[in-house]
Amino acid sequence: MNYLDDEHLERRLRDAGLTLNASAVRDAVRGVLGAPPPHRPESWMDLVGPGIADAKGSPLHRQLKALHDTCRRETTPEEAPGRHARLEAFRAELVRQGLAGFIVPRGDEHQGEDVAKRSERLAWLTGFGGSAGTAVVLHGKAALFIDGRYTLQAQAEVDPALFDFRPYPKEKPDGWIEENLNPDEKTGVKFGYDPWLHSPSQAARLRAACEKCGASLSAVQTNPIDALWRDRPAPPLSPARPLGAEFSGESSGDKRRRIAKTIALKKAGAAVLNAPDSIAWLLNLRGGDVPYTPLMLAFAVLYDDGALDLFTDPRKLIPAVREHLDTDVRTAPTADFGPALDALGRQKQGVLIDPDGGPDWVAARLKRAGARLVHGADPCALAKAVKNETELTGMARAHRRDGAALTRFLAWLKDAVPGGGLGEIAAAKKLDALRAQNDRFRGPSFPTISAAGPNAAIVHYRAAPGTERKLEDGSLYLVDSGGQYLDGTTDVTRTVALGEPSAEMRDRFTRVLKGHIGLAGARFPKGTTGSQLDALARRALWEAGLDYDHGTGHGVGCYLGVHEGPQRISKRPGVTALEPGMVLSIEPGYYKPDAYGIRIENLAAVVSLAAPEGAEHDLYGFETLTLAPIDRSLIVTEMLTQNEIAWIDAYHARVHRALSPLLSGDEDAGAWLKAVTPPLRGGRQY
Amino acid sequence: MNYLDDEHLERRLRDAGLTLNASAVRDAVRGVLGAPPPHRPESWMDLVGPGIADAKGSPLHRQLKALHDTCRRETTPEEAPGRHARLEAFRAELVRQGLAGFIVPRGDEHQGEDVAKRSERLAWLTGFGGSAGTAVVLHGKAALFIDGRYTLQAQAEVDPALFDFRPYPKEKPDGWIEENLNPDEKTGVKFGYDPWLHSPSQAARLRAACEKCGASLSAVQTNPIDALWRDRPAPPLSPARPLGAEFSGESSGDKRRRIAKTIALKKAGAAVLNAPDSIAWLLNLRGGDVPYTPLMLAFAVLYDDGALDLFTDPRKLIPAVREHLDTDVRTAPTADFGPALDALGRQKQGVLIDPDGGPDWVAARLKRAGARLVHGADPCALAKAVKNETELTGMARAHRRDGAALTRFLAWLKDAVPGGGLGEIAAAKKLDALRAQNDRFRGPSFPTISAAGPNAAIVHYRAAPGTERKLEDGSLYLVDSGGQYLDGTTDVTRTVALGEPSAEMRDRFTRVLKGHIGLAGARFPKGTTGSQLDALARRALWEAGLDYDHGTGHGVGCYLGVHEGPQRISKRPGVTALEPGMVLSIEPGYYKPDAYGIRIENLAAVVSLAAPEGAEHDLYGFETLTLAPIDRSLIVTEMLTQNEIAWIDAYHARVHRALSPLLSGDEDAGAWLKAVTPPLRGGRQY
Repeated sequence: MNYLDDEHLERRLRDAGLTLNASAVRDAVRGVLGAPPPHRPESWMDLVGPGIADAKGSPLHRQLKALHDTCRRETTPEEAPGRHARLEAFRAELVRQGLAGFIVPRGDEHQGEDVAKRSERLAWLTGFGGSAGTAVVLHGKAALFIDGRYTLQAQAEVDPALFDFRPYPKEKPDGWIEENLNPDEKTGVKFGYDPWLHSPSQAARLRAACEKCGASLSAVQTNPIDALWRDRPAPPLSPARPLGAEFSGESSGDKRRRIAKTIALKKAGAAVLNAPDSIAWLLNLRGGDVPYTPLMLAFAVLYDDGALDLFTDPRKLIPAVREHLDTDVRTAPTADFGPALDALGRQKQGVLIDPDGGPDWVAARLKRAGARLVHGADPCALAKAVKNETELTGMARAHRRDGAALTRFLAWLKDAVPGGGLGEIAAAKKLDALRAQNDRFRGPSFPTISAAGPNAAIVHYRAAPGTERKLEDGSLYLVDSGGQYLDGTTDVTRTVALGEPSAEMRDRFTRVLKGHIGLAGARFPKGTTGSQLDALARRALWEAGLDYDHGTGHGVGCYLGVHEGPQRISKRPGVTALEPGMVLSIEPGYYKPDAYGIRIENLAAVVSLAAPEGAEHDLYGFETLTLAPIDRSLIVTEMLTQNEIAWIDAYHARVHRALSPLLSGDEDAGAWLKAVTPPLRGGRQY
Repeated sequence: MNYLDDEHLERRLRDAGLTLNASAVRDAVRGVLGAPPPHRPESWMDLVGPGIADAKGSPLHRQLKALHDTCRRETTPEEAPGRHARLEAFRAELVRQGLAGFIVPRGDEHQGEDVAKRSERLAWLTGFGGSAGTAVVLHGKAALFIDGRYTLQAQAEVDPALFDFRPYPKEKPDGWIEENLNPDEKTGVKFGYDPWLHSPSQAARLRAACEKCGASLSAVQTNPIDALWRDRPAPPLSPARPLGAEFSGESSGDKRRRIAKTIALKKAGAAVLNAPDSIAWLLNLRGGDVPYTPLMLAFAVLYDDGALDLFTDPRKLIPAVREHLDTDVRTAPTADFGPALDALGRQKQGVLIDPDGGPDWVAARLKRAGARLVHGADPCALAKAVKNETELTGMARAHRRDGAALTRFLAWLKDAVPGGGLGEIAAAKKLDALRAQNDRFRGPSFPTISAAGPNAAIVHYRAAPGTERKLEDGSLYLVDSGGQYLDGTTDVTRTVALGEPSAEMRDRFTRVLKGHIGLAGARFPKGTTGSQLDALARRALWEAGLDYDHGTGHGVGCYLGVHEGPQRISKRPGVTALEPGMVLSIEPGYYKPDAYGIRIENLAAVVSLAAPEGAEHDLYGFETLTLAPIDRSLIVTEMLTQNEIAWIDAYHARVHRALSPLLSGDEDAGAWLKAVTPPLRGGRQY
């Protein structure tokens, strides 16, 4: 891009009545390239001015597109140095900063699951691309902590000569540090962490571990990876979008005043919000800064009167957004966030922070400034988890459309497989494409897991060219996928038999199904947590000495994160009671390494049930949202109780009833759906 | 007692070759009166010299008995001032100590459930005699925190004009303090606590609550109750007793070296033990300082080489005990405990303390002395919970004898009730007397709950003269009782129908039974916690919108506490995995206020199960220890599954097989047992 081009571009901008100069546009494009590719390819042009994105043939549109392409070529990553050299350089940087070691988590400044490209520090250092993990590097050794879902992925991606794999959460970084950090007896040493990337609780655990072995924990000014990462992407830039009342069901002002009350109840004057999904929910805004979840990266301070200070790149707040925000929302650049915390301190405010969720940097800055810290969960989390009627209706509609797409995929599959040669990636592309036919679709809610045969035993498997498998007769195929729709988020797993399944596969599938029904059909009193219910999904597997090494269910947002708290269904102790309006996944599974994997996942909303006579407690249960057939060829009917058979028959009848109208244009799929949803034991057709 | 008597006594002592003087004996007797009455009435005389207790006719025996009787008369409590006057005096004492409020827990310096008479401070202040509760007193108001089990008892015992009843754990003292303590804006105020009676974690929560409202937490030197309690009993004194290898199964030296390794693993040089049951288990000693649990109150420091310093009243360590203790156990008076902590500090030792179990006083003293505190659970707790083969054999034997006593009681009951007039207290006495016929019986393991009709709806009901009910036809009778035997501890609840039970009673009983079987028959993989299994015991109640407001199971010691950790089965999140050898109660229930109560409680040991073919995990389950019939007239067989029917039939067959030989001398009971244990659906008799 040369000067002449700049002049040319500025002329086009002036012609369109815009006052930006070329260098500002070029900066913006760099930010756009730091964000994931938007679902509608040129929608980023809304950052330059309204209407440009849609004016496809216009000279400005064409020039911006050309500029984007040029910049993308320029930012193609430099030849990556080998992992070994990278780790060596990292250790040299630690020496330069006077550190005996450093901890590299997966999370970013917002402690989120989906992070921007520039925050993929763990992948940069180790090669591990999973969504959860932590590396600890000392001068003599290094460890990578990964949970059961990622064991195999880490083995494929990370050099075991460089990193020792440790099973999390059985082993934890603090314990490992305590055991392996050998400080000098006399002087001790400093172990470093980035205070933006750890919560105060995590920092406290690290500090205790360091102190136990005579070392000290030291917050770095500059993350050593950032100092080394030469082609690090720019901070992500994408236009924020208002979410209309027809999807949100409650105005931002009403939400803010509601949350403000909980802040006041905790005797705080303000709360610091750093979770972008909380901010998105609270402001009825969506963004495009990270993959899979429509988030705008931002920080916010919510006051006990419902006013809010929003700290983010102001360029994201395009005119439509500024119009949408009410006057009690003040916006400021991210750089003003620190000074705003100082001001809270000067006012001797009680400030609510989440010691397990916010960055330690924020807590430390507030403390230094004189604020009184009030510890508590993110005040939006629980409110966001309990969906209102509008959101529940939207979720149900999104699930119908999503179910129709999945059903068309499964119907297509039965013909595509016998031909032979269908690969995991092509299958996933087909499913993604079927989802994308929907107007309200805004992208997948996570990378589709399309896993054939033994690959399905890798819980978070991701097919890659070269290593992907073909879908073969006589095996199981597992597909776990979901979509982001304007009115809701989906997440569904189906496991299907390709050809004739073995008796063992059918036995295992039926146990997983019994677990699914045991939980989906549970009735439980108000106050019950997901942890209390978890065993119901495992019991049939336990009976046979089997189990699965992941949680049973996670919360799901409404056109937000496909994983959200605070509720969950898990072996891990939890304290959040399930409440009507919460949406959770129910996803027991079974995995036989090197052989096959099974998972049956539906989303379900917690609902109030009519009280039986004599009931003394409010009774809750689940209402399944996901609509897609469950493979009857894998069910051993004799292993099911009458109640379980009734559940599956009623579910299939409902799936058929709800989806067949949406398949009217696809006779094949419609006929297939009818064929796979009759009752298990013949009898009368619905 | 006059001087002449003293001379007389000293002569008798000299005659018996003993060098004690009369005033030492008188002191000892005061201590004996501060302990609960021993199971064998004169066994306390072992404190004076060996053999005296058994020499019933001897002059010294008679004189000691007379001295004991005289002292007991002297220590008869003074006329208690009214509760109102007592609370007023307490508040005046707070003013004298410059305190705006004070917290009074139920626990003692050892944070135990059973406390010595002189530690019954909560009862002294409030009148509440339950085993769990906390009072918080401010100048303007006072609150009593009690859990669901004790709501009704508190209402009967405590004046609601003086104390506001708060439901624990829904509400907690720290939250109440935060809301109700109104310190002066300028100067703040001090809120007091006794650092011996709270753990460091509890103290930290109290401190945070005080600081949140601008007050400060202040550790008192003298508990204000102790300053006012004029006839406060002496510290309990009773002879300790060695527990032979035939009951303990592992020498104290072996236990100490085993635990020492876990201390070293935590990078500590020593651990402070303050739980008397841990010390009893570790030293294979039993005592008689508190009711129901054979404990010697003591503190100990265990070093990483297995050596141990024991701090207790040296008079408890009678010659048989000193002989039993090996040379690595050093004994010292309790007064030496503080200086010993100072010494640990001077050596800059890492000292393991339990932040949730030990007294804050210990942590503070260690810290002040310069020790490095290592936080962790009591290192004996888990080891003690996992019984060895000798203990499990002893427990099984104790349960057979206990089951025979309970069966004789139940058989007797069927004849005693129709006559009319049988009261709850007389019934309990009958059961206690039947248990006491056993040689190895050493007393009840807790106060027998003998509850007729609506009284059984009070979960921790205790019959009192005047308010007790008669056992009446057409009602349910619940009896929850247990014994301490030299070889084991028991705890069992049976609910029986007196006459014809209602359909609702049978429905509820059957749901409770289904829950009991659901848990007792569960199979689960290694690593599973009790919290994960809890729902299995509640599911059948939940289906009907019912539940019970207490835990499902607690750990049980072996001739030790009837409640012990760290394992439990409860709604409350827990992290302790169940391990083979642990003993737990399984006790779901249902309570209809003012109508009836149902509970079916057995103790069960966690056992390893044979792995089914294809099993991938170690599989555990329960083996029921308790042997006593479950009332078949309350079971609705049609509500049970085939598996549930098989469980109850097999259990009854086992009960009959195991107990009938022990009932050979009691034809009535034998015939009754045979009549109440056939299979539910006729068929072949075993």
